Amino acid sequence: MTTSAHRLTGVVPPLVTPFTPEYEIDTASLARLIAFQLAGGVSGVFVLGTSGEGTFLTDEQRQTVLETVVAEVGGQVPVLAGAIDSSTARAGAHIAAARKAGVDGVVATAPYYAATHPAEIERHFKKLATVADGTPLYAYDIPSRVGGTKLSASILLDLGKQGVLAGIKDSSGQDASLRRLVLDRVDAELPDFAIMTGSEVTVDCALGFGVDGVVPGLGNVDPAGYVRIFDAVQAGDQATARKEQDRLFQLFEIIDVPDRTRMGASSSALGAFKAGLFLRGVIDCPYTAFPSIPLSDEEIAAIRVLLDRDGLL
Amino acid sequence: MTTSAHRLTGVVPPLVTPFTPEYEIDTASLARLIAFQLAGGVSGVFVLGTSGEGTFLTDEQRQTVLETVVAEVGGQVPVLAGAIDSSTARAGAHIAAARKAGVDGVVATAPYYAATHPAEIERHFKKLATVADGTPLYAYDIPSRVGGTKLSASILLDLGKQGVLAGIKDSSGQDASLRRLVLDRVDAELPDFAIMTGSEVTVDCALGFGVDGVVPGLGNVDPAGYVRIFDAVQAGDQATARKEQDRLFQLFEIIDVPDRTRMGASSSALGAFKAGLFLRGVIDCPYTAFPSIPLSDEEIAAIRVLLDRDGLL
Amino acid sequence: MTTSAHRLTGVVPPLVTPFTPEYEIDTASLARLIAFQLAGGVSGVFVLGTSGEGTFLTDEQRQTVLETVVAEVGGQVPVLAGAIDSSTARAGAHIAAARKAGVDGVVATAPYYAATHPAEIERHFKKLATVADGTPLYAYDIPSRVGGTKLSASILLDLGKQGVLAGIKDSSGQDASLRRLVLDRVDAELPDFAIMTGSEVTVDCALGFGVDGVVPGLGNVDPAGYVRIFDAVQAGDQATARKEQDRLFQLFEIIDVPDRTRMGASSSALGAFKAGLFLRGVIDCPYTAFPSIPLSDEEIAAIRVLLDRDGLL
Amino acid sequence: MTTSAHRLTGVVPPLVTPFTPEYEIDTASLARLIAFQLAGGVSGVFVLGTSGEGTFLTDEQRQTVLETVVAEVGGQVPVLAGAIDSSTARAGAHIAAARKAGVDGVVATAPYYAATHPAEIERHFKKLATVADGTPLYAYDIPSRVGGTKLSASILLDLGKQGVLAGIKDSSGQDASLRRLVLDRVDAELPDFAIMTGSEVTVDCALGFGVDGVVPGLGNVDPAGYVRIFDAVQAGDQATARKEQDRLFQLFEIIDVPDRTRMGASSSALGAFKAGLFLRGVIDCPYTAFPSIPLSDEEIAAIRVLLDRDGLL
Repeated sequence: MTTSAHRLTGVVPPLVTPFTPEYEIDTASLARLIAFQLAGGVSGVFVLGTSGEGTFLTDEQRQTVLETVVAEVGGQVPVLAGAIDSSTARAGAHIAAARKAGVDGVVATAPYYAATHPAEIERHFKKLATVADGTPLYAYDIPSRVGGTKLSASILLDLGKQGVLAGIKDSSGQDASLRRLVLDRVDAELPDFAIMTGSEVTVDCALGFGVDGVVPGLGNVDPAGYVRIFDAVQAGDQATARKEQDRLFQLFEIIDVPDRTRMGASSSALGAFKAGLFLRGVIDCPYTAFPSIPLSDEEIAAIRVLLDRDGLL
Repeated sequence: MTTSAHRLTGVVPPLVTPFTPEYEIDTASLARLIAFQLAGGVSGVFVLGTSGEGTFLTDEQRQTVLETVVAEVGGQVPVLAGAIDSSTARAGAHIAAARKAGVDGVVATAPYYAATHPAEIERHFKKLATVADGTPLYAYDIPSRVGGTKLSASILLDLGKQGVLAGIKDSSGQDASLRRLVLDRVDAELPDFAIMTGSEVTVDCALGFGVDGVVPGLGNVDPAGYVRIFDAVQAGDQATARKEQDRLFQLFEIIDVPDRTRMGASSSALGAFKAGLFLRGVIDCPYTAFPSIPLSDEEIAAIRVLLDRDGLL
Repeated sequence: MTTSAHRLTGVVPPLVTPFTPEYEIDTASLARLIAFQLAGGVSGVFVLGTSGEGTFLTDEQRQTVLETVVAEVGGQVPVLAGAIDSSTARAGAHIAAARKAGVDGVVATAPYYAATHPAEIERHFKKLATVADGTPLYAYDIPSRVGGTKLSASILLDLGKQGVLAGIKDSSGQDASLRRLVLDRVDAELPDFAIMTGSEVTVDCALGFGVDGVVPGLGNVDPAGYVRIFDAVQAGDQATARKEQDRLFQLFEIIDVPDRTRMGASSSALGAFKAGLFLRGVIDCPYTAFPSIPLSDEEIAAIRVLLDRDGLL
Repeated sequence: MTTSAHRLTGVVPPLVTPFTPEYEIDTASLARLIAFQLAGGVSGVFVLGTSGEGTFLTDEQRQTVLETVVAEVGGQVPVLAGAIDSSTARAGAHIAAARKAGVDGVVATAPYYAATHPAEIERHFKKLATVADGTPLYAYDIPSRVGGTKLSASILLDLGKQGVLAGIKDSSGQDASLRRLVLDRVDAELPDFAIMTGSEVTVDCALGFGVDGVVPGLGNVDPAGYVRIFDAVQAGDQATARKEQDRLFQLFEIIDVPDRTRMGASSSALGAFKAGLFLRGVIDCPYTAFPSIPLSDEEIAAIRVLLDRDGLL
């Protein structure tokens, strides 16, 4: 399967980046994470995204992640790489590096820090597509992280028609606008424009109304669960899909374990995912990127209880 | 005067970065901008900030700016450099490069893109201070660009007491909280902690209630005007300061000239400043960084009228 | 069926309030609207809500609406009445009036205008329940209208356990938190706590993951369509439900017809619903409440095209 | 002095509404509050505003407040009354009642709960002016309470030119836009359009750049202090004004005493003002309107310390 010939579909988890206690990239843990994901049946992996803490890493660390992942995946599924940065020039540099490392697709947000107009966002993606030079470029719609900028259906599909974008990862959390995009894709006659949801708690619904796949942060911890949802919906078995999603929604409670009066919303959620992987024996250290505050031993123990309740240990 | 021995004060404009029509750094224009600012009587210059479009530039372009500015200023006033990036590691790399180029101070925001907790922001600044290694580090409080994160007075003054921060540039636009900080600085017995406002339209007020200086974007176009406000307040002549500020507020209308139905809020304001410098003969090209949309000829002509009304042409 | 004995379920449209061109309540049109809804198969009606422009009406006008609706419905289905006002005292007065008029349930938001704490919101609903005195009280979660206040699952279910609340109408547009509430209801062992969604574009999903019914603004125009979704989901036919929801999502485009550069978001959407009812011959005048700007003839003609496309004319 | 013949100026505190422990209007305390304010030298009083908890009161309670205040003030200074409600019809009813009670001016916000367009807001104020029928109508700009709606300078001054509005109370907290309005008033040649600020912590600044007066919540507790600021600025003594404002800013810390983890932002601030009046012997009971949570004895004791520090006890 290649992303250029066919639309991206299925479960494509946004992989976390394992660190050593000294905040170096832990390539051995990363290799095990890849093996764990492939064993779970994922259709692809997405590295250096929000869950991958890509915006925290130096260029050297990013390179280490890309090379490790491309080598470990070995072409079994597509590798998508985040090229998330504040401006066209900086995101473009990440795209160039990712292509050199041999990824199968790149993923970029709207510019951030500065406040941009939709017409400027269009220029941004068009320029990035020239840098990608044939490697599929996906838009990453994540308003909460980019100053509230929401990518509209009309811009996305226009850029799809022009061959600039191969699809979108929607992390807006707005299922109504996502469904609108699915409906508009039909009118635009763009069947090859991939629509992936980044929301991990309504995947059965989103697949039900026509998205192509999911990029679930929680899929780091339980990729097989999301694959089961996908397979059930493909088989027309919405009841099984719902049951599995409900289970994963309960599992998602792990992100509420960390104490948000002493740490951030990002480090809480990613820390919980990493704690889950640590407890399942996949990675060696649950640290999130500096300056994030790590989970306490008590918090990790509380997550263990939730994983155990779910039969994941 | 050095920033390390004495508190930063006065007018320290956040310089724009001139481009060629091909989006290269226009070092000749940048040199003229430095000369223009020094002739205007500024107390320092701040490069690679929000007005300097630092987050749009590649590392190579940033280096060109730093080297040009340090050379052109030649020690006449302090040079402050923005080290604005999403994470500690990336901002730290900018600080290291800026120090190597010989700047007198560095300026960093809270982390962005990820959502961070105040305790994580403290870790961020403490780590950056170790990288700055004696070069004064200023916090840049600009909630609108960093996901709404506001730096609290208690954190700022705690970090000031610990020797981590030399001061703050406040671009929150919240004069009430800024005044609170001024009052709390007295209680904290931190007279050397510099408090600079980034708001260009209430400078007479802010100096009146005790801030040390101003970092006015509009100061690119009319540094002498801001210096007159500062001098008037120092001389106890609030009436003259008000009159000058009222004039500059009228001049600030240039940022409302560009059509925001076709370009962004950032490119409108910065484009207007650059158009002003272009019309005043300081820089050769009014372009803002890609993917920003440039002002039209008609918009530049309308700005000419406003500058002419004000006697600046 | 009574709301007190059994959980509220099914399709309960939030009825618009028809006006004459002089902004009086058009009781004849209101009677026709009731008949139209009953013919469509609705399980109940909700008057004086957001769609009913309850906050625009005088107490006398509210009374006219209540009496007309209670008389026309004649006990065939439950009548729910909005008691939406800024404070406990004012909402309580509306509840008392609604009870006197003989409604079957009352619906209240969190306090607004003032910024309240969850503990104050709890006091609010407890007091309102004593005023309701046995008439079922439903919480209305609509953060966008009440200063951003979101009713948490824990408060809602606590108040459910205490017998204060009979259920909730969720108009937060946040399907993830709505699903969380459905799951938490199971843990809370509160099967009789009704959970109704106010989102009209993902009803098949919401019913699929376990909500009890829907309060769809668009149901004013096409109640039978929503009843078909509900019936299909009850019958386990998710595919039919999806198809019907997709059709209604396309019909929902009528709210994008009015020109929002000249009128508000509320008057656009409600004006479109009223135009739909006007075009279908149900009400005589499509005006929304003063000071709302009415739709132009061209806009009404454009809505006619969309209704015609859908076979509703 | 009448508000219709001359522009409103000076210190016009937004009076709190004293309650008995049973949540009835405490008219004896209200009478003492009026006497206290007049003794403090205020230029007018504003009742039933945000500080007056007008949106919490029943129509009967509102009437009691209006009649008490008009009688106690006895024409010594103008009485302004809030007519704050969600819609034109409802605010209009409050205006009619206030006129009947004999007030000298009425104050209304933009509509809220529903989302309105500027053109609809214009219709709103024009209609209210016909209801006010010669009684001066002031716009109340308080975006935080009315869904974010900000009244623009162009609308305000247009309505001023048309004789609809006599002025504005600006509680936006945005000193830059307030100053813009002051400058635009000159261009509009509307010297009689009153511009009052509702921010209590930058009054010296606002008067310095040209506003006419202040409506300070904290003025409930210390009206004489605000009168001293006003008099000092009138006398050209900005230094004394600053000193007094700095003192009042320190006193404003009383609003941070109540524990916001257990009560709301509104009840905290208003509760602190009422506690201050209670401690100064002006009112008998510090309760805020139901469902607000009252301050604890410990919190009142902590406010006593701050008042004592300031010499107000």
